[in-house]
Amino acid sequence: MPNISRKGMEMPQSPIRKLVPYAEAAKKKGRKVYHLNIGQPDIKTPQVALDAIKNTNITILEYSHSAGFESYRNKLAASYQKIGLPIATEDIIVTTGGSEALLFALGSTMDAGDEIIIPEPFYANYNGFAVSSGVKVVPVVSGIENGFALPPISDFEKLITNKTKAILICNPGNPTGYLYSKEEIQQLASLVQKHDLFLIADEVYREFVYDNEQHYSIMNIAGIENHAIMIDSVSKRYSMCGARIGCIVSKNKEVMTAALKFAQARLSPPTYEQIASEAALDTPKSYFDEVIEEYKERRDVLVRELHKIEGVTVAVPKGAFYCIAKLPVNNADDFAQWLLESFELNNETVMVAPAAGFYSTPNIGLSEVRIAYVLKKEDLVKSCEILKAALIEYKALS
Amino acid sequence: MPNISRKGMEMPQSPIRKLVPYAEAAKKKGRKVYHLNIGQPDIKTPQVALDAIKNTNITILEYSHSAGFESYRNKLAASYQKIGLPIATEDIIVTTGGSEALLFALGSTMDAGDEIIIPEPFYANYNGFAVSSGVKVVPVVSGIENGFALPPISDFEKLITNKTKAILICNPGNPTGYLYSKEEIQQLASLVQKHDLFLIADEVYREFVYDNEQHYSIMNIAGIENHAIMIDSVSKRYSMCGARIGCIVSKNKEVMTAALKFAQARLSPPTYEQIASEAALDTPKSYFDEVIEEYKERRDVLVRELHKIEGVTVAVPKGAFYCIAKLPVNNADDFAQWLLESFELNNETVMVAPAAGFYSTPNIGLSEVRIAYVLKKEDLVKSCEILKAALIEYKALS
Ligand SMILES: Cc1ncc(COP(=O)(O)O)c(C=O)c1O
Ligand SMILES: Cc1ncc(COP(=O)(O)O)c(C=O)c1O
Repeated sequence: MPNISRKGMEMPQSPIRKLVPYAEAAKKKGRKVYHLNIGQPDIKTPQVALDAIKNTNITILEYSHSAGFESYRNKLAASYQKIGLPIATEDIIVTTGGSEALLFALGSTMDAGDEIIIPEPFYANYNGFAVSSGVKVVPVVSGIENGFALPPISDFEKLITNKTKAILICNPGNPTGYLYSKEEIQQLASLVQKHDLFLIADEVYREFVYDNEQHYSIMNIAGIENHAIMIDSVSKRYSMCGARIGCIVSKNKEVMTAALKFAQARLSPPTYEQIASEAALDTPKSYFDEVIEEYKERRDVLVRELHKIEGVTVAVPKGAFYCIAKLPVNNADDFAQWLLESFELNNETVMVAPAAGFYSTPNIGLSEVRIAYVLKKEDLVKSCEILKAALIEYKALS
Repeated sequence: MPNISRKGMEMPQSPIRKLVPYAEAAKKKGRKVYHLNIGQPDIKTPQVALDAIKNTNITILEYSHSAGFESYRNKLAASYQKIGLPIATEDIIVTTGGSEALLFALGSTMDAGDEIIIPEPFYANYNGFAVSSGVKVVPVVSGIENGFALPPISDFEKLITNKTKAILICNPGNPTGYLYSKEEIQQLASLVQKHDLFLIADEVYREFVYDNEQHYSIMNIAGIENHAIMIDSVSKRYSMCGARIGCIVSKNKEVMTAALKFAQARLSPPTYEQIASEAALDTPKSYFDEVIEEYKERRDVLVRELHKIEGVTVAVPKGAFYCIAKLPVNNADDFAQWLLESFELNNETVMVAPAAGFYSTPNIGLSEVRIAYVLKKEDLVKSCEILKAALIEYKALS
C-alpha cells in the first residue's frame, strides 16, 4: 500500500473537530448543546441575493471567466470605492471563498520552505493553507492581557529571516475580535516596506465593527500598493457562507498575473453564487445596520455575562463575532470535552472551541476558549449560566 | 517591491490563452470565429437540475459538510453502484469541480519534489495543479500513429524512480479522445501494485463513449483498492461546468482522511450547485442517449470532413469530445495565430488549440491541434471547409 504524503499527514485538523463526536453523543442522550464554537451566523441571507438566483434563467450552466464575471467585478470595485478603497476591476479576482483567495495569495507569493509571520492566536485554517502550500508559519504572540493588540514591531523584526516573504493579519480578527488601529496598520506598512515583504490582510469581517470604531483596510495605505494583498469574502458579510464566493485584491500586477494563472487552472468560481453575490451588493444599508446592532448587543450580553463568572477574563472584541475568554482551568481542551461528556444543567450544555488550536506555539493559550456570539441573546445568557455552573462543578472535581 | 513566488512564475498558461487576444481582435473586425478550441459544451443542462435550484427555499445560505451533503454522497454512491462501481458513501468527498479533486489527490499523495508519470498529450491544467503542489510531472509519450494508445509498460518502468508516487491517466482522454481498453487498465493496475504507486484516473468523460465501446473504471479492478483514486465531475456529464462540483473517490482510508483535511481547510463546496448536482442524478436516460448520439454524429462528421483535407491525420476518438489532428504545418501555434490574424473565408475563421501545450516534452506535437467537437454539425462542416482553404493558402505563403 503506497504511503500518503507528509503534507497529508501534517494537515491540521480543525480545533473543534475532535469535540464533534462528544457533541453528537451528548445530543443522542437528548441533551441540548449551545454551539458557541462555530462561525456560522444564524442571520438571514439578504433576500435580494436569494431572489437573484430564483430569477435567473440559465439553460446551459457554463464556466464563467476564471477571474469571475466582469459585471460582478465592476460592481464590486464600485462598492469598494464607495467605502473609500481605491480598488479597480483589474485589481480583483473572484475566488471560491476567501479560503481560495488565501491559497492563491500564498501560492502567488511564496514557495515551499518560505516563511510567513502571523500574529497568534489566528484563524486555524491558515495552518492548513500553509501546509498545503509548503509554507512555514512563524507565529508572533499577541496576548489576552493586551486585548490581542498588535505585538511590538520589534517582535516581528526578531522573526524576519531571508526566508520571510509575507506577514498575514486578520482584521478584525478571528478568533480575537481585535480591530487594528490606523497606527498599527501603518506600523505594519512601514515594516513591509522596510523589509520588502508582502502584507496579506484577511478582511472578511470588515463590516463587523462596533462602538463607532473604524476599520482601516491595508488597501487604504499609500505607498504599499505593491505589498498589499487583501482577502475578502461574502460568507460573513451577507451570511452567505455556502456561496463559496470571495476575492483576492491587489494592485501588484505580478501578483495578480500569478493569481490569475492559479485561477485559470481551476477554471472558474461557481456561477449561481456569483449571481447571488453580485445581487447582494444591492443589499440595503438597513440590513447591515440591523445585523451590526444585533451583533453588538450580543457581544455586550456575552461580555456582561462572562464578567459575572469568577475567574474568567475576556478580551472585549471590537469587531468580528468572536471573543477569547480565559477560564479558570488548566486545560480548556479537557474542560470542553468534559462539558459535552459529563456536564449538564437542566439537560443543557455548551460547546466551546479550545483556543490552543488557534495558537501555533505549543502550550500557550491552554486556559483559553473562543466563543462565537452567533446565537440569540437569550441563548448567550443561558450559555453563560451553564458555563458558570460548570466551572464551579469542574473546580470541585479537581 | 517583493518578488512573487517561483511557483507563480512557473504556473503555466493555458495553451489557448495566448490566442485569445487574436480571437478578440478578429471578432472586432466583424469576423465570425468558430471555436473548436474549447471544452464548454453547447448542450442544455438537464431541466431537473435547474429546477431543483429554482425550487430550493434557502433562507440562510450555510456552509455544508466539508465532504459534501450526505444525501448527495449517498445518492452518488448508489448511482456508481448502478453502473457496477463498488463505491460507498464514505469513499466519496464532494469537491469544487474535478479540478479541486485533482488538487486534493496530489496533495494527499505527493510532496514537493515527488514525481507523477502522465501519458502525454494530457489535459494542460495537470501542469498547473502539479506546479501548485510542487510536484514534478514526468511525461510518457503516446503518439498519434497508435491513436494515443497506452504506451508500453516498459516505457513507464524506465521512468520510475524513488521519487515516483503516482501515475495519472485521463480516461477517456482529453485531448486525445482515447479510451483505454480493459487490458490497458489491468496492465496499469499490475504496474502500480508492483511498484507500490497510486493510480489516479480522471474519469470525468466516463459517459462519453461511442461505437458501443465500454468504459473500464479503475474502481472496477480488484486488488488495487488502496492504490486507486478516481476523479469525477458533473461539468461535462450534465453540461454543468459552471456548477463547480466534482468528487474524489477512493477506498484508501488514509488518502480519504488526508483529502478530508484539505476539504475541511476550505470549509465546503458550493451549496446551490450541490443541490443541482444531487437532482441531476435523476436525469432521465433519454437525455444521455440523445447527448451521446449527438456527440457521436458530430465526431463522425468531424472525422469525415478532416479526412477530406489533404495532409491531415486524425486519431479517431472513441470517447470524450476532443480529437487530435496532425496538420501539414511545421508549427501549429503559428498557424493557429495566423488563422485568427490573417485568414478568412467569407469573413469567417476558426480557432483551434495548438497541441504542443498538451505535451510536457518540449518540441513534440508541434504540427498537431486539438479540436473539440462541441459545435453543431453544420458548424463543424463549415469549420473544416475553412481549415481546408486556410491550409492551402498557408502552404502557398511559405
Ligand atoms: C478569518 C477568516 N478568514 C477566512 C475565512 C474563510 O471563509 P470563506 O472561505 O467562507 O470565505 C473564514 C471563515 O470562517 C475566517 O474566519
Ligand atoms: C480531463 C479533465 N479533467 C478535469 C477537468 C476539470 O473539470 P471541472 O473542474 O470543471 O470538473 C476538465 C475540464 O475541462 C478536463 O477536461
